[in-house]
Amino acid sequence: MSLRDARIVFTPSGRRGTFPRGTRLLDAARSIGVDIDSVCGGRGLCGRCRIVCMDGNFAKHAIVSRASNLTPVNEIEQRYSERWRKLDDGHRLSCQAVIRGDLVIDVPPESQMHRQIVRKDAEHRDIKLEPATRLYHVEVQPPDLLEATGGDLQRLCDALAWEWHLSDLVCDPVVLPSLQQALREGDWRVTVAVHKHTTIVAVWPGFRPRAHGIAIDIGSTTIAAHLVNLTAGRVIATDGIMNPQIRFGEDLMSRVSYVMTHADGASELTDAVRQGVNDLIEEVCGLGGIGPADIVEVTMVGNPIMHHLFLGLDPRELGGAPFALAIDTALDVKARDIGIAIHPGASVYVLPCIAGHVGADAAGMVLAEEPHLLDDISLVVDVGTNAEIVLGNRDRLLACSSPTGPAFEGAQISCGQRATRGAIERVRIDPASLEPRYSVIGSELWSNDPEFDTAIEAFGVTGICGSGIIEVIAEMYLAGIIDEHGVVDGALAAQNERIFADGRTFSYLLHEGRQRIVVTQTDVRQVQLAKAALYAGIRLLQERAGIDRIDRIRLAGAFGSHIDPKFAMVLGLIPDCDLNRVESAGNAAGMGAMIALLNVPARAEIETAVRQIEKIETAVEPRFQEHFVSAMAIPNKQDAFPRLFSVVARPPSKQLAAGQGTRRRRRRTEAEQ
Amino acid sequence: MSLRDARIVFTPSGRRGTFPRGTRLLDAARSIGVDIDSVCGGRGLCGRCRIVCMDGNFAKHAIVSRASNLTPVNEIEQRYSERWRKLDDGHRLSCQAVIRGDLVIDVPPESQMHRQIVRKDAEHRDIKLEPATRLYHVEVQPPDLLEATGGDLQRLCDALAWEWHLSDLVCDPVVLPSLQQALREGDWRVTVAVHKHTTIVAVWPGFRPRAHGIAIDIGSTTIAAHLVNLTAGRVIATDGIMNPQIRFGEDLMSRVSYVMTHADGASELTDAVRQGVNDLIEEVCGLGGIGPADIVEVTMVGNPIMHHLFLGLDPRELGGAPFALAIDTALDVKARDIGIAIHPGASVYVLPCIAGHVGADAAGMVLAEEPHLLDDISLVVDVGTNAEIVLGNRDRLLACSSPTGPAFEGAQISCGQRATRGAIERVRIDPASLEPRYSVIGSELWSNDPEFDTAIEAFGVTGICGSGIIEVIAEMYLAGIIDEHGVVDGALAAQNERIFADGRTFSYLLHEGRQRIVVTQTDVRQVQLAKAALYAGIRLLQERAGIDRIDRIRLAGAFGSHIDPKFAMVLGLIPDCDLNRVESAGNAAGMGAMIALLNVPARAEIETAVRQIEKIETAVEPRFQEHFVSAMAIPNKQDAFPRLFSVVARPPSKQLAAGQGTRRRRRRTEAEQ
Repeated sequence: MSLRDARIVFTPSGRRGTFPRGTRLLDAARSIGVDIDSVCGGRGLCGRCRIVCMDGNFAKHAIVSRASNLTPVNEIEQRYSERWRKLDDGHRLSCQAVIRGDLVIDVPPESQMHRQIVRKDAEHRDIKLEPATRLYHVEVQPPDLLEATGGDLQRLCDALAWEWHLSDLVCDPVVLPSLQQALREGDWRVTVAVHKHTTIVAVWPGFRPRAHGIAIDIGSTTIAAHLVNLTAGRVIATDGIMNPQIRFGEDLMSRVSYVMTHADGASELTDAVRQGVNDLIEEVCGLGGIGPADIVEVTMVGNPIMHHLFLGLDPRELGGAPFALAIDTALDVKARDIGIAIHPGASVYVLPCIAGHVGADAAGMVLAEEPHLLDDISLVVDVGTNAEIVLGNRDRLLACSSPTGPAFEGAQISCGQRATRGAIERVRIDPASLEPRYSVIGSELWSNDPEFDTAIEAFGVTGICGSGIIEVIAEMYLAGIIDEHGVVDGALAAQNERIFADGRTFSYLLHEGRQRIVVTQTDVRQVQLAKAALYAGIRLLQERAGIDRIDRIRLAGAFGSHIDPKFAMVLGLIPDCDLNRVESAGNAAGMGAMIALLNVPARAEIETAVRQIEKIETAVEPRFQEHFVSAMAIPNKQDAFPRLFSVVARPPSKQLAAGQGTRRRRRRTEAEQ
Repeated sequence: MSLRDARIVFTPSGRRGTFPRGTRLLDAARSIGVDIDSVCGGRGLCGRCRIVCMDGNFAKHAIVSRASNLTPVNEIEQRYSERWRKLDDGHRLSCQAVIRGDLVIDVPPESQMHRQIVRKDAEHRDIKLEPATRLYHVEVQPPDLLEATGGDLQRLCDALAWEWHLSDLVCDPVVLPSLQQALREGDWRVTVAVHKHTTIVAVWPGFRPRAHGIAIDIGSTTIAAHLVNLTAGRVIATDGIMNPQIRFGEDLMSRVSYVMTHADGASELTDAVRQGVNDLIEEVCGLGGIGPADIVEVTMVGNPIMHHLFLGLDPRELGGAPFALAIDTALDVKARDIGIAIHPGASVYVLPCIAGHVGADAAGMVLAEEPHLLDDISLVVDVGTNAEIVLGNRDRLLACSSPTGPAFEGAQISCGQRATRGAIERVRIDPASLEPRYSVIGSELWSNDPEFDTAIEAFGVTGICGSGIIEVIAEMYLAGIIDEHGVVDGALAAQNERIFADGRTFSYLLHEGRQRIVVTQTDVRQVQLAKAALYAGIRLLQERAGIDRIDRIRLAGAFGSHIDPKFAMVLGLIPDCDLNRVESAGNAAGMGAMIALLNVPARAEIETAVRQIEKIETAVEPRFQEHFVSAMAIPNKQDAFPRLFSVVARPPSKQLAAGQGTRRRRRRTEAEQ
């Protein structure tokens, strides 16, 4: 073997360098900026610096790489392999392997400190793992009478500066009482959690491989939590509970009323939501096999009222004009200061609110759906009692909320109900016979399936949920039962008795059984009002931005995730767009909280984005009323929705060749089931 | 009147400038850097910008200044004068008065933002008023539907940036819940407390003129507190209580033993001292006519064990080698995080500890006595069960502690007691007759005064306190009752029966009454042991530093403040020094806490000074034992204490002309009573 320096090539980065034989592989990698993780400080405990030594002749680099060009597997690696995770052939801990010759070394994704967390959706960028709180394993100098080395904390800080280049650290005072014991129990080796490279927030004796965080989405109805391993960037468990505030009122405004009419109302509601969050944290930690005290970081999103109540702020001001938020900027607070029972040094990051009705949930939605990063014009909508609407692209982003009312959630609809078992969620109406078929939550079967009645026997058909309402009214329109003004065509009563006179207007009988499920003229009006409000909000933003063409639409939230975009477009909830680019965004707000949990720069990113969003207040915009009135009608698709029309291929009026188009649409729909 | 710009001279700064007529005086002053305070933002509410318009011909400046060169007193000034504090002739609010011609304006000390707080003692520098937490009065823009102006907090921050140039502020989350109400109750005018120019820690509706802080000194026996008006830099009230930890043990080591022998011992002691501090805060606030929630800032000093227990840290490690502190650096924590019940946003600044036995109290002592700033060599000593000793000057400072034991506190002395009513504290012995006279705590009279018995009848003579022990033994030595080896001269029993055989040694009867107060040979030995330990510590530092000459000596702490320096030097507690420069420092530790409360830069100053102090551990210094043994003897003053001798003027042995010297000393002493 020649005595010249060894040449090392690292993949996939392609970084290369020459190093004296005898150099530790981890040191070589770091000296040329190769991104290799390590929590234990090169002690062979954490295995995060695992690399793969490539075998073969790499002509491109003029290098012959072989396992024997590294020192043999040593005792520390053997112990790691036996105790923690088997090291396959060629796999080595780079903190133990020493260079003896030329090498090509592959750094697998899981060994990269800033590894990418790949999102399933091809349209979204990956998330770089860069949590706010990171673990560091250090060996601390014991105290010594002869040398003046400072207190335990000082020596811990010295060790962190020496081993990890973390300087000027401060220590959360709640960590101090456990510091002495941790150091002595760990025989002067401890694992330290450091928040944002500045603050020691936890100290544990010995080596600790993992830190955990939770992303929380506080909705008016449900609270959802994702438990995340912050060291690996993996979701470990997901869980949700009902928001215990429901006992004070079903919807947001009834809770604000409660606060207005009860002296301690605000603190009762705050206690309730915090208790709910604490219960949920305990549950989701249980699922993940850890304890709440293992959680070092939480991120939170929620609508403005949930945001305020969670932070202990009176939501009264949000109940009326001028809808003043107490705080709209992001907040990074100690969990203990807001009564969240996790690790005492842990932080809670609360995403910023956009405006009085456009909350941290909308900010989370933006962070997840990234309209602020794209050239394409995005429309991102979270449809609830208030629709939160964001429109624009990297150049300009506008937001507003629109008072859609509770119709989309199944409320104020004669047979409406929440999206629970027994609720009709899918509807099709045959345009020739005007006969419906439908499916209910709790079964995959359609109502014309022979097994349907047996399948749903336990709970029956109990009502229509939000997405069912949209489908049935869209199908009524497509079948010609209602016209573009939303009027139920009483003349059809002669053709099918499901259309029947109901007072001075006509209704449509969707289901007959233990309960009669009927769609009334008033129900149609309610949905028209709701969708007109939503559409008027969108139009207002379009008009302000001078934007006609929308390139992509994302429907977020519980309702938005369940409605079929086609029907939303048929009814004119959303403007015309290539139907392939109209998609459900799922719980985009929660995803935003998760991104802020995994990646600190994303916090600055969304804070900047939110500051730059133009906030439009629909309540004082005269044009909103105009748009609202003109959006009451169901659009004539041929004129207004050319792109939708090309997919649905169904003319707006029965007079045109209805049959073919309907069948084509049906095939698509059924293939998607 | 000419139309040229007006010339203004400000005194005492001497700053001058020319300004367009019509300029507001406060603006003119600030534009040229004249230090004028203002809390209300120029609204004529706080009166802190009051100046005096000088009348006359100031030839030196070629200026004729007269009251009419300012606009007349306006309504706001009249209202201020009626409601708050009368404005004398020529006194104006500079925020209201507008320049109309040449002026000489005096800015009185109380109107300077960084005014000097004059310390009585000429030897100490003045303290510049620069507290960590300052008040700012602002007017906040109300929320407005038409303008997107951000949340309440954002608009408050905007106002603070606009009016006070405070940018990038963050807000303590505990302030948020009261923010909305404060803004609305104050009709969008609020007073804000900002900590270190970075963090909003309190918001009150309307104008609030004063902020308060408390400096706390936690001693093993007593806890003392000074309540300070941080806006004016004035001490409002001082109070002290017994440390409630006393029920767990009289002295420090018995409390550490309690912790070692009881599972929850540390937290019991922590709870006790925090409860004591909270009680004391409530008491001292009561004296000052305010509530604990008005306190926005606290500073704390204490010995290492009190420091640890107050912070909730286990003191066990301090009970044995290597005496490792959990934290030695200074700490700035939220009061709420350590259970101190003041304003929820308030901070507690804890001074740094110097070493395992030299605590934050010693750091406070250094800050107050300033050895680190002087060219003169200082010896600063806090004498307790452990003496904390600091020696050196601006170039080099050394510190150690010395285990003097409890003799100086009256313990382990046969008739010793704490310094409470009835304890003998002053003693004189006539060298001819060997008859004593003495005074006790609770009366100003000497025992040979005819009124003495009546004056002390209620409590009697109960024992000897620490300073009494020093005096009686020093006087016994000066009267020749004991020799320089501390042996009671039994031959004198023939001369005065107060010297009597007591077992195999002799004792001295100091007082005969309900209780017999006797000084035994063992008592003398105890004091010799204690003073030898103290002196050995001092010698060790002198030797290390190569310092022979000591320019000034400060005796701090309860004991140090009460002993007569002369007697301390006679017995050889402290080395030779010009007696005029040996002084009691009073509660120097508490004074240090007060300085850190009033002046933020003093915190950085003491942190740097403490880092640079050389810590000497007496327990591992072989030379300490040597010094200790050789310090057991009482010094031959003629040889070792030439400067003391020149004052006391009393030869060490009776053979020399004792009478005259004694009388001279007596006169001095009595003049000082």
